[in-house]
Amino acid sequence: MSDNERLARAALSRLLEPQDAAGLALVRVVGATDALRIATGQLAFGPELERDITALLADNGGSGIWPGMTAALKRWAPRIPDLAPERDLATMHRLGGRMIIPSDGLWPGQLADLGLHEPICLWWRGLEHELPPAAKSVALVGSRDSTSYGASVTGDLAYSLAQRGFTIVSGGAYGIDAHAHRAALAGAGDIVPTIAVMAGGVDRFYPSGNEDLLRAVANQGAVLAEVPPGSAPTRYRFLQRNRLIAALASVTVVVEARWRSGALNTAHHAETLGRAVGAVPGSVHSANSAGCHRLIREGGAVCVTDAGEIAELASPSGESLVDLVPGQPAAHDGLTLEDLILLDALPLRSTSSVEKLTSVAGLSADSVRAGLGRLGLLGLAESERGGWKRARKA
Amino acid sequence: MSDNERLARAALSRLLEPQDAAGLALVRVVGATDALRIATGQLAFGPELERDITALLADNGGSGIWPGMTAALKRWAPRIPDLAPERDLATMHRLGGRMIIPSDGLWPGQLADLGLHEPICLWWRGLEHELPPAAKSVALVGSRDSTSYGASVTGDLAYSLAQRGFTIVSGGAYGIDAHAHRAALAGAGDIVPTIAVMAGGVDRFYPSGNEDLLRAVANQGAVLAEVPPGSAPTRYRFLQRNRLIAALASVTVVVEARWRSGALNTAHHAETLGRAVGAVPGSVHSANSAGCHRLIREGGAVCVTDAGEIAELASPSGESLVDLVPGQPAAHDGLTLEDLILLDALPLRSTSSVEKLTSVAGLSADSVRAGLGRLGLLGLAESERGGWKRARKA
Repeated sequence: MSDNERLARAALSRLLEPQDAAGLALVRVVGATDALRIATGQLAFGPELERDITALLADNGGSGIWPGMTAALKRWAPRIPDLAPERDLATMHRLGGRMIIPSDGLWPGQLADLGLHEPICLWWRGLEHELPPAAKSVALVGSRDSTSYGASVTGDLAYSLAQRGFTIVSGGAYGIDAHAHRAALAGAGDIVPTIAVMAGGVDRFYPSGNEDLLRAVANQGAVLAEVPPGSAPTRYRFLQRNRLIAALASVTVVVEARWRSGALNTAHHAETLGRAVGAVPGSVHSANSAGCHRLIREGGAVCVTDAGEIAELASPSGESLVDLVPGQPAAHDGLTLEDLILLDALPLRSTSSVEKLTSVAGLSADSVRAGLGRLGLLGLAESERGGWKRARKA
Repeated sequence: MSDNERLARAALSRLLEPQDAAGLALVRVVGATDALRIATGQLAFGPELERDITALLADNGGSGIWPGMTAALKRWAPRIPDLAPERDLATMHRLGGRMIIPSDGLWPGQLADLGLHEPICLWWRGLEHELPPAAKSVALVGSRDSTSYGASVTGDLAYSLAQRGFTIVSGGAYGIDAHAHRAALAGAGDIVPTIAVMAGGVDRFYPSGNEDLLRAVANQGAVLAEVPPGSAPTRYRFLQRNRLIAALASVTVVVEARWRSGALNTAHHAETLGRAVGAVPGSVHSANSAGCHRLIREGGAVCVTDAGEIAELASPSGESLVDLVPGQPAAHDGLTLEDLILLDALPLRSTSSVEKLTSVAGLSADSVRAGLGRLGLLGLAESERGGWKRARKA
């Protein structure tokens, strides 16, 4: 790995907004080092480069926003004076963190599913330990202004999933995100129990009310961003950040979301990536569950109510066995129609003769006698002084 | 209509348990009058009758339970002495009710969808007024031990649906059923605001705690059963009764149900009939919502949260227009990517120059100027002393 490549990607992550398709395509076509030189006007380019980028963008459904190389250069130019990749890398080093690029061993392989939209690099605070694969990661996301119901459900889910060895991915925000990170740290199943993916630079922990929590996440897990230190968490970057949350996990679960919510955006990213999406139901009176119900209604999400159902989405092949039928089976399950009718006809306190039962149940005497034998064997009927009654357990 | 046919059906409804497939097939093949004579041994039958019944049952997927005519006769024999159709009709008359048969004008046409399993007759207390078609009827069903949440949601739904002109069909039981009937009476949209379909005879209002309510349902709506006066509401009859609830309405909505619940059985009947099924979500901590979540998860039901969504299921062609997008659109909806980035870059309090914005937003000066123009027109950006800031509404 050349230092040039690393420096170039550090610089490009400041030059380009996340998901700048033209910039990402340029990196794909000529590599990061030459991409930076072209983007900063140090290297000329010919018409074949433009053709290659156009083709790549068309393959990725993004040619509509491609204004041509000259326009792109003009767009990138204003930020060139701000580029200082060595300083950014030094900042991360000072904070005990690092910056990783796709060729690094620590690079999370599941991000490749983003295709052209894979980030240029990741700015990372936390343990120098590889992140778990998508199959062992669950994203829990939701409203900042979560209710006590949302807090309690998120806590239960994150803790139980962590105990089952899942890593909890979220966005480090107030509300559902914070509850998810906190409970995952408490559950601490995997060596990386939780990952916070930030919309702004990881040099500061934002929002400030979550500073202690995010410090704990960095100490025991990982705090990541695709934008360099000092970057503001703009609305646009929040939306782009959501695709990273969705891509890191195999399942995205929306615990609480209003009708319009950033969490739904994360769910849509997950769907686009072919990842499973779950949503937790709640009161129809709660505005904070309206987004979840919308996802479920519109078929964008599976209704999930506990950690077992989420684990099932993460490994649908059944690796994670869950209890599919809670609740006790009833004693009368599996009876034939005739035996069920006969059971209904049996008195609870007094006893009844076979003759009486034939009339009440509308069955022949033979059927009644045979049925009473079967119900007796099952402990559902008992005879007393020549008559029959229902057994206490029936 | 011959009195013989009416008397024969009255007698057959006592002789045969609901959904006695052999008996129903016999009625289909030879008509009710001869069916009663054969079933009571007054008329002989030949092998061709047995062949016809076997074929009819096979067509209806029920040949597995057909033990042959001789066995059926033996099964029916014990109840022959109890038959007293004149007495049963007189009882209904005394109660101000009636008994109707499929050839009557009052017969609900939607019951024909039950095919072979259409009831032989209906014992009816209530207004002598035809019932609304399925498209104007919604079944609301659920737990007997409903929670305050279930009570409140059922009340809201039944009342709103009644006000929209829907008739509410339910089972007259405690809990969700009772709340549904009560709110429908209050909403009183249709001339028949609510229908209670009973598992036992309509001569008495069962359960006794609902006596006043059911009397009100009979006075303003209808209380129906397929079993004759004096019949006990056995477990088997509850399960068969559920198919009538499902068949009378175009939508069956389960408001609250435990993991195992009779309401789920009604939902399955509705599904089998090709009727729409809805389920109301609730707290994942509530055992009374577990059955609803199960239905939604397993694809047996659509998640429904208000009367509008239920009305939509009743007339999916859009006859009943509902507000599809609650919530206010955000001011920044529909912005292009560049304008969204630019909006994010605009300061809230101080102002920023075009040059500064090119760097913060990573856009060319031309793009920034054009974007500021667009945002200004939308009222999202405003200029002040040569600089730009975000407008208050943005």
